[in-house]
Amino acid sequence: MDLIKVKEALEIVVNNSQNFGIEEVDFLNSSGRILKENIFADRDFPPFDRVSMDGIAISSEAFNKGQRSFKIEGIQAAGSEKLTLQNPVNCMEAMTGAVLPKNTDAVIQYELLTIENGIATINLEAVKSFQNIHLKGTDKKQGDLLVKENTLISPAEIGVFATVGKSIIKVAKQPKVIIVSTGNELVEVAENPADYQIRRSNVFTMVSLLEKLQIKAETLHILDDKEVLLTKIESLLNNYDVLIFSGAVSKGKFDFIPEVLSELGVKKLFHEVKQRPGKPFWFGKKGYTERSRSEKVVFAFPGNPVSTFVNCLKYFYPWYYKSVGLNFENKQEAILSEDFYFKPEMTYFLQVKLNQIEGELWATPISGKGSGDLANLADADAFLELPDNRSNFTKGEVFPVINYR
Amino acid sequence: MDLIKVKEALEIVVNNSQNFGIEEVDFLNSSGRILKENIFADRDFPPFDRVSMDGIAISSEAFNKGQRSFKIEGIQAAGSEKLTLQNPVNCMEAMTGAVLPKNTDAVIQYELLTIENGIATINLEAVKSFQNIHLKGTDKKQGDLLVKENTLISPAEIGVFATVGKSIIKVAKQPKVIIVSTGNELVEVAENPADYQIRRSNVFTMVSLLEKLQIKAETLHILDDKEVLLTKIESLLNNYDVLIFSGAVSKGKFDFIPEVLSELGVKKLFHEVKQRPGKPFWFGKKGYTERSRSEKVVFAFPGNPVSTFVNCLKYFYPWYYKSVGLNFENKQEAILSEDFYFKPEMTYFLQVKLNQIEGELWATPISGKGSGDLANLADADAFLELPDNRSNFTKGEVFPVINYR
Repeated sequence: MDLIKVKEALEIVVNNSQNFGIEEVDFLNSSGRILKENIFADRDFPPFDRVSMDGIAISSEAFNKGQRSFKIEGIQAAGSEKLTLQNPVNCMEAMTGAVLPKNTDAVIQYELLTIENGIATINLEAVKSFQNIHLKGTDKKQGDLLVKENTLISPAEIGVFATVGKSIIKVAKQPKVIIVSTGNELVEVAENPADYQIRRSNVFTMVSLLEKLQIKAETLHILDDKEVLLTKIESLLNNYDVLIFSGAVSKGKFDFIPEVLSELGVKKLFHEVKQRPGKPFWFGKKGYTERSRSEKVVFAFPGNPVSTFVNCLKYFYPWYYKSVGLNFENKQEAILSEDFYFKPEMTYFLQVKLNQIEGELWATPISGKGSGDLANLADADAFLELPDNRSNFTKGEVFPVINYR
Repeated sequence: MDLIKVKEALEIVVNNSQNFGIEEVDFLNSSGRILKENIFADRDFPPFDRVSMDGIAISSEAFNKGQRSFKIEGIQAAGSEKLTLQNPVNCMEAMTGAVLPKNTDAVIQYELLTIENGIATINLEAVKSFQNIHLKGTDKKQGDLLVKENTLISPAEIGVFATVGKSIIKVAKQPKVIIVSTGNELVEVAENPADYQIRRSNVFTMVSLLEKLQIKAETLHILDDKEVLLTKIESLLNNYDVLIFSGAVSKGKFDFIPEVLSELGVKKLFHEVKQRPGKPFWFGKKGYTERSRSEKVVFAFPGNPVSTFVNCLKYFYPWYYKSVGLNFENKQEAILSEDFYFKPEMTYFLQVKLNQIEGELWATPISGKGSGDLANLADADAFLELPDNRSNFTKGEVFPVINYR
């Protein structure tokens, strides 16, 4: 066989990633996007000596001279300007989140106090300077780098953006993607297929897979007619960054996609990968033209549901990550839970159920019925990637895994 | 200490889950929701004896009688009605996805054929009945259960819905949630805080955490004024299913939340949990009233950023899963990568970085600066849950982990 290996195919795909630029979004809509600026501390954190327990603020010097009862001068509330303790033998009530009052250096929590007639008595043997005070700049100093460019934004980062006042955030712009099904056997989801027809499903599975990357893909169906394909795909190449096809890439009489793409100037970078399922995958690229004004990439996946699914995860995802600058490599691996045999010299993407057991990830094969069995995907969690250089895989061995849950 | 333990607190929270009913959504918008019906196969899958390779369909009987060359009678394309092979010594070209033509029972792929002048010659020693044919009903039979009620919908299920023609899907209705910040020290994200102020961040972190559950939460800020709190919270109790607070639940002079909730008829189920961070967590419930027409639950989290964050993951998430019927228990565990010491007899939620190494999940502590250090959350991936009954935790031990990436 002279098919390309999975590793080489992936390299070619990833090396054809593209930069789609940067856009600004409201920070609250940025979860799942890729950050395109460094986020720095705009001030020290905490920005002031911050009371971290509800109680009284005193001068520890007074306590250490033997004083135990302190007259309450006032209350330092959170959100109020810094007050000053006028007399160092008195105290000031002070609340969590408040600024530490001037002339005080220790906070004693209410649980360790007796308060009567405006006098707080401390039931403690020792008081340390700065106890229950979160000192200015302890967490971060003004100018510290808090979140690095190219980070995948999660709720933790959303909180940081709010804290430093970044209400508008620079993120990677998303590629404009269209997902195209072909095949005269396909009818719409709400239709009743005739005996020889089936419903469209792959494009919707892929829309959903891309939604996980925050990409809102559009969809289209084109019949297996070469002239129609030529006209429609030419227009798509002018209007989208990425075309994803499902079907019509194999050796059938109506598998027009590869030749149509060639005729439209999309250069084939490979066709057919040494893998199962998903072997007839065709990948190509069209260079910059006056009309399209940018490069285009085309993922033409085979039309079997499981082929499309695994190829989208194995190739499109890493292409996207590289394109938006995310330094991500899927390093997840799982432990095979039973012996498995697969003869052909191809990478096998084995459908598995995952189990977490004491910090270990175990993969149990789900017996599939071939690449057409979409329902089976719903019974599994992931694909275990078995290498192409052998046929026997033993319980306890560790292999890369693509988890889609 | 007579605080409630984490395990008991979680039990109380989960036992106060609620059923918010069912709604119908477009199947393509159902990813991340909880399925509320069983999905059955509407027909056999494949629905017909399906050609699974491009090539010719023949009668294997003819081949087994010694015949190797077959005259091509026509083409069976995908999406066309079933054709009939008129003469059993002839063949029919047949495409992947097509119905197997009548009077044929084997498909030979083009790679193994020589075709000249309308005659296909098979370069093969043996042909088996039904080779390269995906027989009707092999994957699933009509009426088979494909996706069970209460499944968390992912792209794999979206594909199944499309396949069986379920364009509208029953899913669990989401609770109506409002997230309320209190604290006079808080200013809006786009504002410049004075020296003694900070920006609101917890509500946005939580909006983002709830967005991961497909819940669109609303937000509100209320000043630390008891009368205002009473009026506003009364109205919220009538208009939302769930109230989440951040702050004002501790012992401070302006920590009005617990008493305001009590005065409004919300029954305290616990206050203060034996954990760090997040100890002052208050949880309560208001029974059915004429006006509100349903039960309400109130999560009043402490206002420190890390406390709010970990409590939302540890308590709100499982409450939500139980409410919508998802049979989910976080069973993920990780292996501690270095010795760790924590003295107080409390459950400690240790901030950790996660690493996947050969199928094992390792957790490395990130040195935090206490519960106020939100920026630190951005440096970590998860909380390792260290039990409250000891102080020494040893490298290699396995503990539950809450992964928030």
